[in-house]
Amino acid sequence: MAGTFQELLTTLQAFWAEHGCVLWQPYNQQVGAGTMNPATFLRVLGPEPWRVAYLEPSVRPADARYGENPNRMGQHYQLQVVLKPDPGNPQELYLRSLQSVGIDPARHDLRFVEDNWEAPALGAWGVGWEVWLDGQEITQFTYFQQAGGLSLDPVSVEITYGLERILMALHGARHFGDIPWNPLFSYGDLNLQAEKEQSRYFFEVADIALLKRLFDQFEGEARAALSAGLVLPAYDYLLKCSHTFNLLDSRGAVGVTERAALFNRMRGLARRTAQAYLEQREALGHPWLDKAARHQPAPETAAPDGQPPRGPAPFLLEVGVEELPVGELERAMEQLQEATSQLLEQNRLAHGPIRTMGTPRRLVVWVEALAANQTDLRVVRRGPPTQAAFDPRGAPTAAALGFARSAGVAVEALTRQRLDGGEYVVAEIQQPGAPSREVLSRALPGLLASLRFEKSMRWNGAGVSFARPIRWLLALHGQALVPFSYAGLQSGRSTRGLRHCQPEAWALDDVQHYLASLEQQGILLDPAARRERISQQVRRLSEEVGGQVAEDPSLLEEVGHLVEAPTALRGAFEQSYLELPREVLVSVMKAHQRYFPIERQGKLLPYFIAVRNGGQEGLEQVARGNEQVIRARFADAAYFVERDRRQPLESFLPSLERLTFHAKLGSMLAKSRRVEKLTGRLATSLKLAPEQRKTALRAARLCKADLATRMVIDMTSLQGVMGREYALASGESAEVAQAIYEHYLPRQAGDAIPESRPGIALGLADRLDTLASLFGVGLQPSGTSDPYGLRRAALGLLQILIGADLPFDLKPALAQAGELLVPGKRRTAGSGARVSVRSLQKGLASCHAFLLAREQNLLLDRGHRHDVVEAVVAAQGHNPAGAARAAAELEACVRQEDWPEVLHAFARCARITRGESKTHTLTPKALADPASKALWVVLRKAERTRRRPGSVPDFLAAFRPMVPLVNRFFDEVLVHAKQASLRRNRLALLQRVVALAEGVADLSRLEGF
Amino acid sequence: MAGTFQELLTTLQAFWAEHGCVLWQPYNQQVGAGTMNPATFLRVLGPEPWRVAYLEPSVRPADARYGENPNRMGQHYQLQVVLKPDPGNPQELYLRSLQSVGIDPARHDLRFVEDNWEAPALGAWGVGWEVWLDGQEITQFTYFQQAGGLSLDPVSVEITYGLERILMALHGARHFGDIPWNPLFSYGDLNLQAEKEQSRYFFEVADIALLKRLFDQFEGEARAALSAGLVLPAYDYLLKCSHTFNLLDSRGAVGVTERAALFNRMRGLARRTAQAYLEQREALGHPWLDKAARHQPAPETAAPDGQPPRGPAPFLLEVGVEELPVGELERAMEQLQEATSQLLEQNRLAHGPIRTMGTPRRLVVWVEALAANQTDLRVVRRGPPTQAAFDPRGAPTAAALGFARSAGVAVEALTRQRLDGGEYVVAEIQQPGAPSREVLSRALPGLLASLRFEKSMRWNGAGVSFARPIRWLLALHGQALVPFSYAGLQSGRSTRGLRHCQPEAWALDDVQHYLASLEQQGILLDPAARRERISQQVRRLSEEVGGQVAEDPSLLEEVGHLVEAPTALRGAFEQSYLELPREVLVSVMKAHQRYFPIERQGKLLPYFIAVRNGGQEGLEQVARGNEQVIRARFADAAYFVERDRRQPLESFLPSLERLTFHAKLGSMLAKSRRVEKLTGRLATSLKLAPEQRKTALRAARLCKADLATRMVIDMTSLQGVMGREYALASGESAEVAQAIYEHYLPRQAGDAIPESRPGIALGLADRLDTLASLFGVGLQPSGTSDPYGLRRAALGLLQILIGADLPFDLKPALAQAGELLVPGKRRTAGSGARVSVRSLQKGLASCHAFLLAREQNLLLDRGHRHDVVEAVVAAQGHNPAGAARAAAELEACVRQEDWPEVLHAFARCARITRGESKTHTLTPKALADPASKALWVVLRKAERTRRRPGSVPDFLAAFRPMVPLVNRFFDEVLVHAKQASLRRNRLALLQRVVALAEGVADLSRLEGF
Repeated sequence: MAGTFQELLTTLQAFWAEHGCVLWQPYNQQVGAGTMNPATFLRVLGPEPWRVAYLEPSVRPADARYGENPNRMGQHYQLQVVLKPDPGNPQELYLRSLQSVGIDPARHDLRFVEDNWEAPALGAWGVGWEVWLDGQEITQFTYFQQAGGLSLDPVSVEITYGLERILMALHGARHFGDIPWNPLFSYGDLNLQAEKEQSRYFFEVADIALLKRLFDQFEGEARAALSAGLVLPAYDYLLKCSHTFNLLDSRGAVGVTERAALFNRMRGLARRTAQAYLEQREALGHPWLDKAARHQPAPETAAPDGQPPRGPAPFLLEVGVEELPVGELERAMEQLQEATSQLLEQNRLAHGPIRTMGTPRRLVVWVEALAANQTDLRVVRRGPPTQAAFDPRGAPTAAALGFARSAGVAVEALTRQRLDGGEYVVAEIQQPGAPSREVLSRALPGLLASLRFEKSMRWNGAGVSFARPIRWLLALHGQALVPFSYAGLQSGRSTRGLRHCQPEAWALDDVQHYLASLEQQGILLDPAARRERISQQVRRLSEEVGGQVAEDPSLLEEVGHLVEAPTALRGAFEQSYLELPREVLVSVMKAHQRYFPIERQGKLLPYFIAVRNGGQEGLEQVARGNEQVIRARFADAAYFVERDRRQPLESFLPSLERLTFHAKLGSMLAKSRRVEKLTGRLATSLKLAPEQRKTALRAARLCKADLATRMVIDMTSLQGVMGREYALASGESAEVAQAIYEHYLPRQAGDAIPESRPGIALGLADRLDTLASLFGVGLQPSGTSDPYGLRRAALGLLQILIGADLPFDLKPALAQAGELLVPGKRRTAGSGARVSVRSLQKGLASCHAFLLAREQNLLLDRGHRHDVVEAVVAAQGHNPAGAARAAAELEACVRQEDWPEVLHAFARCARITRGESKTHTLTPKALADPASKALWVVLRKAERTRRRPGSVPDFLAAFRPMVPLVNRFFDEVLVHAKQASLRRNRLALLQRVVALAEGVADLSRLEGF
Repeated sequence: MAGTFQELLTTLQAFWAEHGCVLWQPYNQQVGAGTMNPATFLRVLGPEPWRVAYLEPSVRPADARYGENPNRMGQHYQLQVVLKPDPGNPQELYLRSLQSVGIDPARHDLRFVEDNWEAPALGAWGVGWEVWLDGQEITQFTYFQQAGGLSLDPVSVEITYGLERILMALHGARHFGDIPWNPLFSYGDLNLQAEKEQSRYFFEVADIALLKRLFDQFEGEARAALSAGLVLPAYDYLLKCSHTFNLLDSRGAVGVTERAALFNRMRGLARRTAQAYLEQREALGHPWLDKAARHQPAPETAAPDGQPPRGPAPFLLEVGVEELPVGELERAMEQLQEATSQLLEQNRLAHGPIRTMGTPRRLVVWVEALAANQTDLRVVRRGPPTQAAFDPRGAPTAAALGFARSAGVAVEALTRQRLDGGEYVVAEIQQPGAPSREVLSRALPGLLASLRFEKSMRWNGAGVSFARPIRWLLALHGQALVPFSYAGLQSGRSTRGLRHCQPEAWALDDVQHYLASLEQQGILLDPAARRERISQQVRRLSEEVGGQVAEDPSLLEEVGHLVEAPTALRGAFEQSYLELPREVLVSVMKAHQRYFPIERQGKLLPYFIAVRNGGQEGLEQVARGNEQVIRARFADAAYFVERDRRQPLESFLPSLERLTFHAKLGSMLAKSRRVEKLTGRLATSLKLAPEQRKTALRAARLCKADLATRMVIDMTSLQGVMGREYALASGESAEVAQAIYEHYLPRQAGDAIPESRPGIALGLADRLDTLASLFGVGLQPSGTSDPYGLRRAALGLLQILIGADLPFDLKPALAQAGELLVPGKRRTAGSGARVSVRSLQKGLASCHAFLLAREQNLLLDRGHRHDVVEAVVAAQGHNPAGAARAAAELEACVRQEDWPEVLHAFARCARITRGESKTHTLTPKALADPASKALWVVLRKAERTRRRPGSVPDFLAAFRPMVPLVNRFFDEVLVHAKQASLRRNRLALLQRVVALAEGVADLSRLEGF
């Protein structure tokens, strides 16, 4: 076992050097990750092969913990490995490297858990996993897809080991400081003091104003270097920008929108740098291309064929993959079921039931009783017209003879048939079905190619995209191999088991042995079966400690999709952590670790249940590992909460001054002051009771304070939750605390909306300010990019209004928000914003349009007809609650039997008046003819009846009685009378009829109008 | 053999890990050397043990060469090893590490060449060597003495490998790019492009104004961190300062004085950081102290004793040391000769001739026929007074009996003796001499402790200082070991040979075998013998190619002191390099490499002669190695000169604007403009002919231009030399070129002074400006520190004036220089200086005093008597040439026989008039008495005689005739007559006599006055 840090490092380096990696060195800049070393960022670009391994001390100021957290620190050591192109078996190489340092996979729970890596500052992203060792993330494993905004071809495999965590696991160490560095010194001896000091520097000392200047200066120097065509010097300054950004971030000096702007600047540099590097290598003629040969894996050879079945036999397709993300697995199974069925249909392959199954590592299609051959086919082939086929004597002509020959039938077998209005000779050809194996060989590549994923990736030169790399293909029909190739692989008759079980792979001589052979290793192919097993185990384990696990189907589904052979285990943690807010504990357990929390009578117990992949072996060790993980995470949260609670919530407000909301819109403090003012105005327009108003204003004052707390800086998802928690701890009223929490609701689709009136007012004010201000400075979202989350803000606003069924007018509300942004007239000290009136007006108009468009989508998503939605939004979109109600009502109306008649009558009135540029004045006395008079009488009654604003039924109740009268009117009256006054009076009458629909729906948008 | 870079690195790291080193990592800052990694700079501080090894990519912008130089680059890789405390055998460990990577010391010339390392920015220095492999520097080996300005205890051994050079030597590679990094990639594949780009960035792109801002900003942040008590964050910013400084330097933007100021600021940070680290470790209780045990070397045990000689036998003391610097070796031998002689004398050890010999690795004292014992001693011991010793009957009293007993003689043997005016009984005691071995055992430690060195060092806990560490002691008298201990070592009977020869060490049973056993390995103990052998070999090797080597005794002496067993070898270099200026070639060969250049009829041949340590083995390989070294160095020079010559010398002037002379005094361009103006004025006062004046002014314009050339930026010692070279190449006249060259003369003590009048004028102007300007802004040197080299400037000024015997008045000259510094009145655009009149006047006054003090020292150094020097400097110090002449003259005078009489007579005149506050008017007619009259007659004649200004002989010729008259005057005349007018007239007469010495010497300062 590699007992010390330096042994671990040298052993892993030696391992990768043996596998052709260049041994490289940490970079001489402060970087956040090994990826930022040019040996990765630049070398993954372009076509040249590259393999490298190096250590990288990775500086992440925001992760610093003064050395107090067991495994989180401001600087940790990554061992970075890059394999370009994909060697075909990178996961296996990686696992072997772990074995080389003494980690026995059989005694641990080693898992590849979806984690798609992204470095927004570098315009880089990839697809891959965290590797978990007994619940502890020890490695990031990524197929690099883009860097500097450029697509990578070939794709690189990036393996990033977290060396401290590996050693902690190997030694069962409770703190990183305790792991040995060499025989004399511990890791803590060498690094703990630095960790403490740098933590203080990061959080307390670093000069924010200076850092902002430095960022600009470094950016400028990077640009200068790029202008001179210098790649590396430019990149160095980009790295300095990035580190400076990280420092600003750890000082809490970067707001959400400012963050997006700074990322954007860095990404721009990254793109130009990457482009320049590519051009440079191109100009050099890609000198390393010839270094590829030694990296190529040996091509797989196809297994020998077996005996095709003589009759119906089961067919099996197993697509072996690297660990699929949960969502993709579900999606792939659905598609496979459908596509397989179609494929068999189209290819005349008779079959029994089709079962689609899957685990993270395999997609399986099982077809019962698949016929040995296609069903035979009778084809009728058309020949020449009868006239031309036979001479006058009825004897076959040369044309007929030729046709018969080409169709492969005797001329005597030709028959006559009427086709397309003429008579032709036809040949009936009996096509015997091809063997199923042949058919499938041709069709299976198309089946796989037809699968679509949420996020696809490339990995090798075959040009294929898939959710994760395909590593083996198994296709058997009875005993016969169905040969095909896809994604650079040949199908075979081998399957693979759990990675650490013996045997790791085996060949099947008959498809019948497949399921049983997998079950021997505990692998359950059916997700439902896995869920059931997990449920049972979870129940048993929770009951053993007198508790239970609350239903959480989505967590259960996720966990079920993460393993092939589930085994649940229970871990414990220190009772003292239960003092942490419940949301924090649950959030850590579920979101981070996919653990099931155990509770009793609504209170958490100091236990959790994790589910490993595999059986009983080493289960105790796996449990201890998972406990260590949760301990570290809870310690982190406890550290934050404890520090945060030392001061009242209100005292965090000044820190918001440092947090830039957006450069043009001032700090987060300025924003929160605007929200406070706006809340006051909304409290008036929403008619809040005095006590509610007071609550709303106090909550508005405090609503953003938790953004400056350590817990929220670390886990942004806890914003509002911690605000509520800390507000209560600071002696605020329960109502204020609740409003603070609620103002973030709804946080995503399907989330609750605020229940309290203060919470609603505050939630609206916050979103109105966000929308008005960012639109006001011209930062509306583009088609694909919405860096400031304005879509979410708009949707939240609408969902609150609709959910609370609150009458509201968007336009004046936006205007109120806008007023607070313009400096001038009244002294709006501290508004922070500097927005010109002109830009604001333009912005508010486009914001209103943006809101209406979102409203339409929202209503469409509720299942309403497109025309219905258009009709109501056009008429009363400014009041979303009304529009939503009206949409439902109108939807009901248009389904009623007399609707076409009603609409027809209304349309007659509307169409004829549509061209009028003005509203004419009706003079009832001048209505001479009876039809007009009759219509007027009914109209007047309708107008006098009290209707609910925007109500469709009320409109219909008013208009329906007019339908016959309208029809009579048009039958008897010539609207366009020669006499102008007469004409105007008649038009005026109709305009009054049409006006009944105003503020309800624009019926002209409906189908059938 | 470690064939690739990564093998070399991993092998060396494994070697040092086995020897207890922590394996550490490159630092994540751009640093210039491994020393700057906190794993060295901080860890060498304080008492705690520490061993570490790590790679450090070392960024030295000024060394960048666009990848064109064979072995010089902007970034190279150091492997840094620190051993704290000294393990006792670090050189041996180091050499073993080389063997571990396949370097066979027997087949190479491995040398430890004095090189005392210093890092002024870090306040760090140490004593040690460059290690040469066949002439190539491959390692820096240092005993760290100070860091952050703090003395280190214990001392650390720092070993810094240059990995590229080692590999180039192993592969015989001609360019660093060609060495293999791993089996697939060369070093150049991975690093050459970076080298090219960074070179361009360093020299062409880096934004000077930005860098200056950054330096200030980083310094500020370092201070902030220090104020918060944060060591590492402060240190990080210090490193950023240092790198920023290096960038400024490579951009040629740091002048000499500015450099000193920036170093000073960095050193201040380094000191505070080091202090803070020490306090931190102290506060932690030095937790690593217990990690020391495993590092301690086993103590040496004394060898068994041999049989002491019975009669006279040779005595040998050999002090085995690590390679001594040339100067220290010479110094130590001189002292040993003297001190041994005294020691033997004082200890009554009879002996034959004493020979002192030495090589870099041993100091040897050989004493012929040293007696086996001390000479016996007869001691007379005083007893009681005779009266008390005998009773009246003459019988011995109890006192006498007791005395005899205590003296160990029979009472009858007591005799009587008169002592101190009384009579006492005395005992004559015969003390037999102690065995020489005993005496020497006691005395030898003192002998070694008495040695004094130019620069001493400490290395282990014994508290001893020496020029370099002592590693063994051999002391034999005949066959007997003379046991003693010193510097933590026990003396023994073993000596050691050349490091790579077998046997490496052997015991001597008899001292007689010593010399022969060393000579078997070719070791010549006598420096003269080594010089002679080298001379012969050099002659033969030069004649073989038809050339000869010019006499250079100091080079010969140096080379002779660098080896124990000299073997000369001849190397060749490309003919094309002969196109380089001769000074460049010679300077590179002699100063850098200690090679003998070969020439024929005054022209260099493309050969050189190097002297290796050791015999013939591998001589060819050693020669090839040396050739590669000189090739790289010449390539560098050729690169510079070629680039420099692309533009005329004058066109470098604008670059001087970037080069700060001193922040308060503007750029180097501004300085050179001031020098130009001042040269014009001096040309007038020195009465230069019109043509000379023109030459001087043109030379003044160009004199600093070469500071901006690459060749001079790289080798500052070539300033002036290259100026002349490039001036000629740019079509300037030979006179102008010569004046440019000459204005730097004299460069050091003993150097030539300018010969041409323009060269003199320019040399004076340059130094006057330097002195006036730096004193003018208050930057005079302090007692110990002279960062701006003002002592040298002053001495140069004086040496020129004295050497050229040029009448000159320092005061107005300084005033003229000062005028150019004050902005105002006349528009002195571009003077660059901003000096206040008040500060300037104060500065010029103290500058004048400073010059007079230097002048005194200079004259004292010429061997003049102290009083003589004071006398002439007091009278005519403002004119150094006159003062120098007068000093010699006066020195001659005071040796003449009649001098006391002359001085007496003059003193009588001088003393009586000394108290007069005014000069009285002489009325000759009122001189009534004959003595006065007679004196007046002679005085008048003397006053009318023409005398050379300041001439002592002329003064003497005038005064000597007056001596008898002066004496008569005082005999006959009462000067202080009652009548006031009479008294004043007599005083006036004497004042006139005294005035004869004005401007010649202040005779009152002479002894005997």
